[in-house]
Amino acid sequence: MGFHVDSEAGRLHRVILHRPDLELKRLTPSNKDALLFDDLLWVRRARAEHDGFADVLRERGVEVHLFQDLLEESLRLPAARGLVLQRVFHEREYGPLATDHLRAAFEGMPAGELASWLIGGMTKREFLERHPEPVSVRFHVMDLDDFLLNPLPNHLFTRDTSAWVYDGVCINAMRWPARWHETVHYEAVYRHHPLFAQGGFHVWSEGQSAYPSTIEGGDVLVIGNGAVLIGMSERTTPQAVEMLAHRLFSTGSARTIVALDMPKARAFMHLDTVMTMVDGDTFTQYAGLGTLRSYTIEPGAAAGELKVTDHPPEHMHRAIAAALGLDGIRVLTARQDVHAAEREQWDDGCNVLAIEPGVVVAYERNVTTNTHLRKHGIEVITIPGSELGRGRGGPRCMSCPVERDPVPGL
Amino acid sequence: MGFHVDSEAGRLHRVILHRPDLELKRLTPSNKDALLFDDLLWVRRARAEHDGFADVLRERGVEVHLFQDLLEESLRLPAARGLVLQRVFHEREYGPLATDHLRAAFEGMPAGELASWLIGGMTKREFLERHPEPVSVRFHVMDLDDFLLNPLPNHLFTRDTSAWVYDGVCINAMRWPARWHETVHYEAVYRHHPLFAQGGFHVWSEGQSAYPSTIEGGDVLVIGNGAVLIGMSERTTPQAVEMLAHRLFSTGSARTIVALDMPKARAFMHLDTVMTMVDGDTFTQYAGLGTLRSYTIEPGAAAGELKVTDHPPEHMHRAIAAALGLDGIRVLTARQDVHAAEREQWDDGCNVLAIEPGVVVAYERNVTTNTHLRKHGIEVITIPGSELGRGRGGPRCMSCPVERDPVPGL
Amino acid sequence: MGFHVDSEAGRLHRVILHRPDLELKRLTPSNKDALLFDDLLWVRRARAEHDGFADVLRERGVEVHLFQDLLEESLRLPAARGLVLQRVFHEREYGPLATDHLRAAFEGMPAGELASWLIGGMTKREFLERHPEPVSVRFHVMDLDDFLLNPLPNHLFTRDTSAWVYDGVCINAMRWPARWHETVHYEAVYRHHPLFAQGGFHVWSEGQSAYPSTIEGGDVLVIGNGAVLIGMSERTTPQAVEMLAHRLFSTGSARTIVALDMPKARAFMHLDTVMTMVDGDTFTQYAGLGTLRSYTIEPGAAAGELKVTDHPPEHMHRAIAAALGLDGIRVLTARQDVHAAEREQWDDGCNVLAIEPGVVVAYERNVTTNTHLRKHGIEVITIPGSELGRGRGGPRCMSCPVERDPVPGL
Amino acid sequence: MGFHVDSEAGRLHRVILHRPDLELKRLTPSNKDALLFDDLLWVRRARAEHDGFADVLRERGVEVHLFQDLLEESLRLPAARGLVLQRVFHEREYGPLATDHLRAAFEGMPAGELASWLIGGMTKREFLERHPEPVSVRFHVMDLDDFLLNPLPNHLFTRDTSAWVYDGVCINAMRWPARWHETVHYEAVYRHHPLFAQGGFHVWSEGQSAYPSTIEGGDVLVIGNGAVLIGMSERTTPQAVEMLAHRLFSTGSARTIVALDMPKARAFMHLDTVMTMVDGDTFTQYAGLGTLRSYTIEPGAAAGELKVTDHPPEHMHRAIAAALGLDGIRVLTARQDVHAAEREQWDDGCNVLAIEPGVVVAYERNVTTNTHLRKHGIEVITIPGSELGRGRGGPRCMSCPVERDPVPGL
Repeated sequence: MGFHVDSEAGRLHRVILHRPDLELKRLTPSNKDALLFDDLLWVRRARAEHDGFADVLRERGVEVHLFQDLLEESLRLPAARGLVLQRVFHEREYGPLATDHLRAAFEGMPAGELASWLIGGMTKREFLERHPEPVSVRFHVMDLDDFLLNPLPNHLFTRDTSAWVYDGVCINAMRWPARWHETVHYEAVYRHHPLFAQGGFHVWSEGQSAYPSTIEGGDVLVIGNGAVLIGMSERTTPQAVEMLAHRLFSTGSARTIVALDMPKARAFMHLDTVMTMVDGDTFTQYAGLGTLRSYTIEPGAAAGELKVTDHPPEHMHRAIAAALGLDGIRVLTARQDVHAAEREQWDDGCNVLAIEPGVVVAYERNVTTNTHLRKHGIEVITIPGSELGRGRGGPRCMSCPVERDPVPGL
Repeated sequence: MGFHVDSEAGRLHRVILHRPDLELKRLTPSNKDALLFDDLLWVRRARAEHDGFADVLRERGVEVHLFQDLLEESLRLPAARGLVLQRVFHEREYGPLATDHLRAAFEGMPAGELASWLIGGMTKREFLERHPEPVSVRFHVMDLDDFLLNPLPNHLFTRDTSAWVYDGVCINAMRWPARWHETVHYEAVYRHHPLFAQGGFHVWSEGQSAYPSTIEGGDVLVIGNGAVLIGMSERTTPQAVEMLAHRLFSTGSARTIVALDMPKARAFMHLDTVMTMVDGDTFTQYAGLGTLRSYTIEPGAAAGELKVTDHPPEHMHRAIAAALGLDGIRVLTARQDVHAAEREQWDDGCNVLAIEPGVVVAYERNVTTNTHLRKHGIEVITIPGSELGRGRGGPRCMSCPVERDPVPGL
Repeated sequence: MGFHVDSEAGRLHRVILHRPDLELKRLTPSNKDALLFDDLLWVRRARAEHDGFADVLRERGVEVHLFQDLLEESLRLPAARGLVLQRVFHEREYGPLATDHLRAAFEGMPAGELASWLIGGMTKREFLERHPEPVSVRFHVMDLDDFLLNPLPNHLFTRDTSAWVYDGVCINAMRWPARWHETVHYEAVYRHHPLFAQGGFHVWSEGQSAYPSTIEGGDVLVIGNGAVLIGMSERTTPQAVEMLAHRLFSTGSARTIVALDMPKARAFMHLDTVMTMVDGDTFTQYAGLGTLRSYTIEPGAAAGELKVTDHPPEHMHRAIAAALGLDGIRVLTARQDVHAAEREQWDDGCNVLAIEPGVVVAYERNVTTNTHLRKHGIEVITIPGSELGRGRGGPRCMSCPVERDPVPGL
Repeated sequence: MGFHVDSEAGRLHRVILHRPDLELKRLTPSNKDALLFDDLLWVRRARAEHDGFADVLRERGVEVHLFQDLLEESLRLPAARGLVLQRVFHEREYGPLATDHLRAAFEGMPAGELASWLIGGMTKREFLERHPEPVSVRFHVMDLDDFLLNPLPNHLFTRDTSAWVYDGVCINAMRWPARWHETVHYEAVYRHHPLFAQGGFHVWSEGQSAYPSTIEGGDVLVIGNGAVLIGMSERTTPQAVEMLAHRLFSTGSARTIVALDMPKARAFMHLDTVMTMVDGDTFTQYAGLGTLRSYTIEPGAAAGELKVTDHPPEHMHRAIAAALGLDGIRVLTARQDVHAAEREQWDDGCNVLAIEPGVVVAYERNVTTNTHLRKHGIEVITIPGSELGRGRGGPRCMSCPVERDPVPGL
């Protein structure tokens, strides 16, 4: 056993999910935009839907780790707890008068409770119900219902914060402040949790300090054959792609990156909201994506050098096929009018999670896309998403594979 | 039998609903704001949820009329059809070159098909699949997927477009263009449909021509005892309230209006999104509403005159009680933190539909509010709303009572 | 003498301007967007700059009518006064309780004062300093500094509200409510002011009742040779173009309209913000405009019919030339980087007013465009516009020619 | 001689200004919001207005340093040049493939040219006209007119980036990325420029690394008597206030900070846009500011401790007076209607720069406020600001005093 992700559509063995909880109850019409959500979820139902998602994976033999468990187990270890509390409670955020007071208060909590507040956030009122108030302007100016510790509802999308690429993991520098603390939690887990402590894998990048060289896992597709497909989106920068290329090539873990120049718009938030893999040579793609300029990055002549080849938009699929060592790739796009296509993209129609070659998990609501995939021989396992889907993320967004086989024969 | 609505919480006998269909499939991320929606609905599921809502009403003895049936049955009559087509297809919208051509094309349709397009909208492409293209700049400049006829997704909220107040109906001038055509449809139904053709009721106002004196049914609560409670919101104007007062008082149909000065913000879209009645003297109210300035309007000394009494915010509940002839009213507001309260208001926690005194229909998701109502003796029948609720309207918004008793003893 | 506008660049004899006053002092950061302004003007300075503009025209032999004078002189006549007050103060806006009271209050004012309030707007406070308060919910709910009568700062742009096309005038249906009352004022002036009372000209369209068939003068270029060039923008609709075509062709006043399919965006507010004429065959055009789809409209075979010819974007200039009976047109666009070009368009670089062939008035700030025009033989008379230009309109926007010759030889 | 600022209204001896140049020509309608500007300036005129501002100061005996000169002179020194280039061109922004290439290109420039590009920004096109293109995805994906180096138009507001408080300077961590590079430039100047190299002053904070503990000079008023008044605005945080308190108290340079809890809105961008000092005990204040909660911070009982006293809104002026050791302060607010007051605040009516007690520099356009000040005995020297004022900053915003006396007798 070991941790490695060798493809997008090979057999999936192990995945990290995050079960919806307190952090999603924090969403309101007033704060949802800042927290990167378009709507509120009914958490009890969202959790039931999410449990169904996890069950589907387990039934197919995938081992599921719940992120909050991983975090709690890590926080039992002083080193992990210290790392997190030092990052979360620092003077630059809480000021010289309150920081030590706050850190001490959280230091004293049981790991389970601590994990819950770290993810779910805490209001000033909730703090004062448990602890005395520090003498601090930073603290005094807050209203009772203001968040002392911001909730992290985007932990739901485990895909983004860390991303496994072949035999290593990126702990990502995230684009928006609403997600910066997620990265701290992953650092604690990957460095200290017993599951990962023995190592045996590379760490391609380590946390938020790389900002503004940001990259998010939703933009990273490990397409196999030593190739990686990356969308340069609003959230994933070309400089981060270059840095990852250096790291991957230096260990020989990969030998090609194809980078796509995506529109920098929320509607195209991550590459996997418009394009995912459903088999070793097959993609599902949003009709409205069009074709994009692409760049093939390969090791250069000398050690440490990179070779960059630019492709015009019309060669996008060809560049991907070449990286896969194939003559061509199969792209499945359901024929529907522009309104319907736009609707299904909004509802994560393309954001499917392959669990083995030709078998994907998808939201049931995207009937047109799902039917289209089935007509082309893909097995589509549907899960409900009336609540989960309000978070604008589908099965791929909500899963972080940590162990996946290559697609056989590729 | 006859049409009249004598209260908010008396026994409900008859109601108009609109079953979700094509018009909601038209919503996309790009057009939803202009169409006044915050999110997209999965129509198949929304329809199932809506069917469940209708079934709950029928099981409780309420006769349910579906709006599209009423419209279709009306359109079989040349007078109704003529009224609608003349209003919808006029030169000021379609230009002198295309209007007759379009009107003729729709004139020739069977009533069922016509009703479906009128509500569901039609793209240029859909038109051209059935009819030749007119020589018209107005037509030529459109893209194939542009809407030749705009969809009317807000027909879902039958509450707003027409509103019964005691022994008559307001056919409302709506605030936003996205809903103007709904009013035309209601005019056709109330004037020509056999159900209403024999009359026996007043018409308090007749259609969009009153604009900008707009009023929407979500702001109008027929609280009983000859009193009406009206929210002056972003969509309901004081001038419309005054006009309605004149009409209601002139026939003796009502004797008091209490008008509330609501915040002019989308979050407080209609009065019934923050305050509804659950019994003859009992309201459920959103914690974040606060108290509002109010105005009591009564008949003046001379015929045709009105008397206006201003009340400061803190007297809001007292003014309502006085209009009801009560010493006080009971207001039920669940105690929860501001974030949770804001969430339930967003999810239509207060937007319940009473079907008899003390019995209401509510979305199941608003657990805190529903539990609070139950603790205070209200029977709460819940319906699912994961999809329906994305339209930002609850059971009251989605229902237009046309026959309802007074609350006994009031 | 008589009123007619036979070209864009022929000798200009007579023009209507509006001198900045109270209405522009009303602009605030909070209301400017609703009033269609991007910034506030220092009115005293703006007025001085505007006086300079008027002087330049007078020095060149152009007779200048100030709009407020025309309105005041019209309001001395009971018919004009009645028309305006009946339109402005109607029940649908002010309610049955206040309307008569308000109308009577304004009826009693001297014409000069009345004109000033009608254009400048009036707050509730200002009203109450002069008149008693009516018993009216509509009135009571207003705050003291709310506008009882909205100011009309866009009267500055006399170009838009009425537009002379050959031997007649369009009194336009305006796109946005902030400008609807301007149209009422122009109706009073053109119908009742002694200057226009003897007639001798056509009226192509009459006021706001044509809405939503809107058209604004900034989109209408009377390019000569019986041709009119019209931009179909956010504010000017194809149906209005078709209606105008019917009217112009029925009297033989024009024989071709070329309609351009403009981007529907505020940056391209009117055609004359991106393209104007500086001589009989010469245009100045914003570099970022690109080419647009165009439609040539001509009289059809039978009376009352129209012939429409569609052109692809690349034929835009050719279609304009053909309408002018020329082999080609000259288009002057200064070469500058995209940032600089975008800046000058924002500052009305293209919005020049020709006062005779080859002689234009322009803002001094647009140095690159002005120099470019001069290099190509155009005489450019500059006026300051540090304040005026904050209104996002240049010399053409701020002028309504009512008498202009054709360009000789065309 | 030496650097110290002991008051807001004492005699001003020395100031840093920034003369408008290339960086302001970069503003376009598309990029202005991201660059924190509401409008575009005609740079030639803005520069003339700014020259007038500098002349007024010089005529009154104030020594004026132009920031670009200071930067250029610093960049002649390898240490300063190294500091700037290493910060500006780092891998996290430009990627591993382009960074060295870019740094080398800028390393080779003369200091004057380098200062000009650093402040004015550089497009990819401008770079390629002078240097070869690196092999770099980061570079390839840019369009030719994209900014390789962002312009820094807010250097105009020298007040914000560094702020002198008694005998030391804060080199501020700025709130928005559009201003982060300004701080780097100030670090180079204060550390390396010969003028400052001999030291003799404290450095209270050192640069952007303190982020998110941000503070901007527009929020900092050195009111005298060892007191500092700080607005906690959208841009200035309580934690930064606490840190500054520690530093100031540790050297005994100050003994009281009064921190105001300002609305977090762009309209109240900095404290000095709504409140400045015109004499030792006299403030000019925007009518719409109202009163604010305030906090007095003083040294605590033990070394390194702070004492915090909260005041309710109505005690704001009392708290300021107490810090000044006065019984009360004089606050001058012109009486005008809310619209006019809002207009003058927008136009920096309160943003005056005192050059000695009772003598201030103000924009001429704010006639009401200026007249009000004069009536109360303040000498108001006006400067034009039709262009400068479009930047939403007045004389105080555009000046960074580095040497100013206390107000005598305080």
